[in-house]
Amino acid sequence: MEKHTLLIDCPDEKGLVYKISEIIYKHHLNIAENGEFVERESSRFFMRTEVEGALAHADLLHTLRAVLPPESNIRLEKVRKKTVVVMVTKEAHCLGDLLVRHEFGELNCTIKAVIGNHNILQPLTERFGIPFHFINHEGLSREAHEGKLLELLEGYAPEWIVLAKFMRVLTPEFVARFPHRLVNIHHSFLPAFIGANPYRQAYERGVKIIGATAHFVTNDLDEGPIISQDVISVDHSQSALSMAKAGHDVEKIVLARALDKVLNDRVFVHGNKTIIFD
Amino acid sequence: MEKHTLLIDCPDEKGLVYKISEIIYKHHLNIAENGEFVERESSRFFMRTEVEGALAHADLLHTLRAVLPPESNIRLEKVRKKTVVVMVTKEAHCLGDLLVRHEFGELNCTIKAVIGNHNILQPLTERFGIPFHFINHEGLSREAHEGKLLELLEGYAPEWIVLAKFMRVLTPEFVARFPHRLVNIHHSFLPAFIGANPYRQAYERGVKIIGATAHFVTNDLDEGPIISQDVISVDHSQSALSMAKAGHDVEKIVLARALDKVLNDRVFVHGNKTIIFD
Amino acid sequence: MEKHTLLIDCPDEKGLVYKISEIIYKHHLNIAENGEFVERESSRFFMRTEVEGALAHADLLHTLRAVLPPESNIRLEKVRKKTVVVMVTKEAHCLGDLLVRHEFGELNCTIKAVIGNHNILQPLTERFGIPFHFINHEGLSREAHEGKLLELLEGYAPEWIVLAKFMRVLTPEFVARFPHRLVNIHHSFLPAFIGANPYRQAYERGVKIIGATAHFVTNDLDEGPIISQDVISVDHSQSALSMAKAGHDVEKIVLARALDKVLNDRVFVHGNKTIIFD
Amino acid sequence: MEKHTLLIDCPDEKGLVYKISEIIYKHHLNIAENGEFVERESSRFFMRTEVEGALAHADLLHTLRAVLPPESNIRLEKVRKKTVVVMVTKEAHCLGDLLVRHEFGELNCTIKAVIGNHNILQPLTERFGIPFHFINHEGLSREAHEGKLLELLEGYAPEWIVLAKFMRVLTPEFVARFPHRLVNIHHSFLPAFIGANPYRQAYERGVKIIGATAHFVTNDLDEGPIISQDVISVDHSQSALSMAKAGHDVEKIVLARALDKVLNDRVFVHGNKTIIFD
Repeated sequence: MEKHTLLIDCPDEKGLVYKISEIIYKHHLNIAENGEFVERESSRFFMRTEVEGALAHADLLHTLRAVLPPESNIRLEKVRKKTVVVMVTKEAHCLGDLLVRHEFGELNCTIKAVIGNHNILQPLTERFGIPFHFINHEGLSREAHEGKLLELLEGYAPEWIVLAKFMRVLTPEFVARFPHRLVNIHHSFLPAFIGANPYRQAYERGVKIIGATAHFVTNDLDEGPIISQDVISVDHSQSALSMAKAGHDVEKIVLARALDKVLNDRVFVHGNKTIIFD
Repeated sequence: MEKHTLLIDCPDEKGLVYKISEIIYKHHLNIAENGEFVERESSRFFMRTEVEGALAHADLLHTLRAVLPPESNIRLEKVRKKTVVVMVTKEAHCLGDLLVRHEFGELNCTIKAVIGNHNILQPLTERFGIPFHFINHEGLSREAHEGKLLELLEGYAPEWIVLAKFMRVLTPEFVARFPHRLVNIHHSFLPAFIGANPYRQAYERGVKIIGATAHFVTNDLDEGPIISQDVISVDHSQSALSMAKAGHDVEKIVLARALDKVLNDRVFVHGNKTIIFD
Repeated sequence: MEKHTLLIDCPDEKGLVYKISEIIYKHHLNIAENGEFVERESSRFFMRTEVEGALAHADLLHTLRAVLPPESNIRLEKVRKKTVVVMVTKEAHCLGDLLVRHEFGELNCTIKAVIGNHNILQPLTERFGIPFHFINHEGLSREAHEGKLLELLEGYAPEWIVLAKFMRVLTPEFVARFPHRLVNIHHSFLPAFIGANPYRQAYERGVKIIGATAHFVTNDLDEGPIISQDVISVDHSQSALSMAKAGHDVEKIVLARALDKVLNDRVFVHGNKTIIFD
Repeated sequence: MEKHTLLIDCPDEKGLVYKISEIIYKHHLNIAENGEFVERESSRFFMRTEVEGALAHADLLHTLRAVLPPESNIRLEKVRKKTVVVMVTKEAHCLGDLLVRHEFGELNCTIKAVIGNHNILQPLTERFGIPFHFINHEGLSREAHEGKLLELLEGYAPEWIVLAKFMRVLTPEFVARFPHRLVNIHHSFLPAFIGANPYRQAYERGVKIIGATAHFVTNDLDEGPIISQDVISVDHSQSALSMAKAGHDVEKIVLARALDKVLNDRVFVHGNKTIIFD
């Protein structure tokens, strides 16, 4: 049966659940899963509904718009595989994990290509039959390098870009092209250890727990809305290197969990936060 | 403002959210929090709604019954403190934790009394100004002992009975008097290590993780619906005693978390499982 | 049987384990537990040994000093209960947890007194038969207030001072009086959310995990050597207040774990880090 | 510099650390890492020492044997990559994870071959340049099938055999051929949910946490010494299938962690337990 996901966010007011569920009912749709949430401080209403049944797309949206407040965001997404391009540098653990999941249908997406600013991960990628583009940043200005990346990305036109340990800082102009469409994995439990060498920082600080953070990229480095985080215990006997090794497992799992939410339209961005319907 | 919690479970059918939210809307009630869940295997619908506003109790229930399937369970609870009696044996950690939380208003209940089959915890309890009843089981048949417990419990008429390390097995007759009203903390990660001495069992088995389980008591020992569980890492260097000591912290936190759900009407029991609206 | 803990840290060199264990053997002592660690970056050796048997204290230290490098730190502690004073402000969860543990012999210490800059926790403390001193900071300069605290602390001469949610910043002069003898519980996963209102900060940032950190106090706010940390998952549906409530459980467990290590002489401080023999 | 791992287990007696460290010292070896543990109930001593320096293998063992109790086990292993054969059925997540780690040098082993009783994972394996042997069990008696497996295994003569979701029960005769050399990943938090379909069992029981267990295989199904375990939270909204999907991540991480310990000679087996020097 045909399935769609309806995503609504709007100013809160009395009767929203009633009005929306009435429209769904009168369109003869079945609700497979439903969740609502009201963010109290901003008084904003969020609703995610999976509906089953034949659906008059334009008509449904039209009817909803008629009853919802004027400033509402309403999206109606067909349940289907999304398109993704992955960007990498040298580290294999996140990319390898994504490629295996992708191969066996565990990610709700098609990886159209992998782009690297090094070519170390080319053999791994091509082994899975996926195109790899080596876009060397050496000898290029940041703008020139990003220009080449943009050209490729425009060709693939992916719905999401996954930074799977892509170790280059992106310019505000690049980021602005993909609002809430760039998912990054950062190798620390943000906001601790922003910036370079977080495992070294964690080692120096003598923390007893390290972590990883998947987040949308915004213009502030490591500051975008957080999608998923997890941690692992460490102790004094571990070097910065051994912390990094242990941390790699957290990174790849956290990234995969975040993508599972994002690719299934379970994530709303609200200011600098996410609202996630599990 | 007056607050109520509406709890509905019934066979699933199209339009339930619409019909229920329409009634809430037409009774001029505001939805403060709302959650629904459909259990697919049994095709059963669960909904928990916190509503704000003046409310005609009988009329609201009547209107809901008119539109819901005949086999529906509908409860409408005023948001308020519940009443509790705690039963204990010798161990202080869970009771001590509950007493401190209770004293500082962290538990949504009034602890009317503590009953012990030993009197070790009497001074601790009375220090918090709460009556302690020492009901010695020695020299009494199980039935005679439970008879004394029941007499006390009938006097207090608590909504919930919390077994905070009460180390006596209760008879089916006793349990049947308090269906889904007896909350127990078991010192293992059920269903592992059912029965006596779970830390000793865990030690013998050489597990790397131990845990605790809060659950409703049913007639099968350690087999009732699970409300909350958590775990902690252990290793070969720990004796059964040191595992127990580490486990105590998990026990008291898991019990408190379970009570937080139960006392705020967030838990439905469905067969041998719980459905919890966090 | 008499038990002692031997704690050695010194520059690393070949043969340390051999030389130390030979001395222990020739003093007819039994090793109940032994651990060594070499910190590679600073090339420093740490050893903690629990020995059983009658012991000539001065002679053993003398013999050890003769074979160890000149810059060695050597401590020999009789296994016994330590003395502690707890300092608090208004929040009950950490103090309540410590008092219950203390009462039932779970902490390897005697709590000599509790000092508060508010008197809210006086009844709780006195219920456990422990003196409470209310040292109001209002109308006093920081120095004058700390002068009163110091006077009391000098009277009790505790081996450790536990800041169980003591919400005043201490002056460098005060801190310098108790090097590595002040244990604080900070209500965030340091180094994230240093300073005031960490739960509010965590809420604003939209993190998916919050935590707590027990650490020795040094002159830099929230910057001393970390002893213990733990975390708990949160989500968008939680307010700053509900995060704080969930966080309280982490705080009290992390503080108790840290004290278990500290009070049993399991913690070495090395620069701004701890080395802990579990 | 040459590195060796010395592994000793023997009845405990006074002076063992001294006698062993004296021999190491007098052989001019440097101790890179050292750990000891005494299992109290059986009064058994375990010691793992990484030594650096040129080493007279036979002489060192001879000298150690002369001072240690007669029933001692003494092993001296050169630090090097181990050899492994992986056995699988249909599921890709554990094998895929091992292949990526192996490719990038994260596992201290050479995977000589993968053997499957289905051929689904042949393309994945061969993509990484590793031989895959499809040994169909259909139409064969258990003994005949195992005979074919044994023939292959004898050819490769691996030091360890990893059952990476190999879903066939092995006969006692097969298991007896590889004492403590078969590492299995079981998809539950043992001893909960022994046997088939543990995720279905977990779903039916309504647990709030699921897990995975890596263990050595012995003749009792899912009963061998546990090496590593980890868990993940689940809730009522998850089907048995979604629990399995979430569990896959735990399985692959737990298996990799166990192999990291095993392949670096960090694991002693003692009765039905492991003693692990992290």
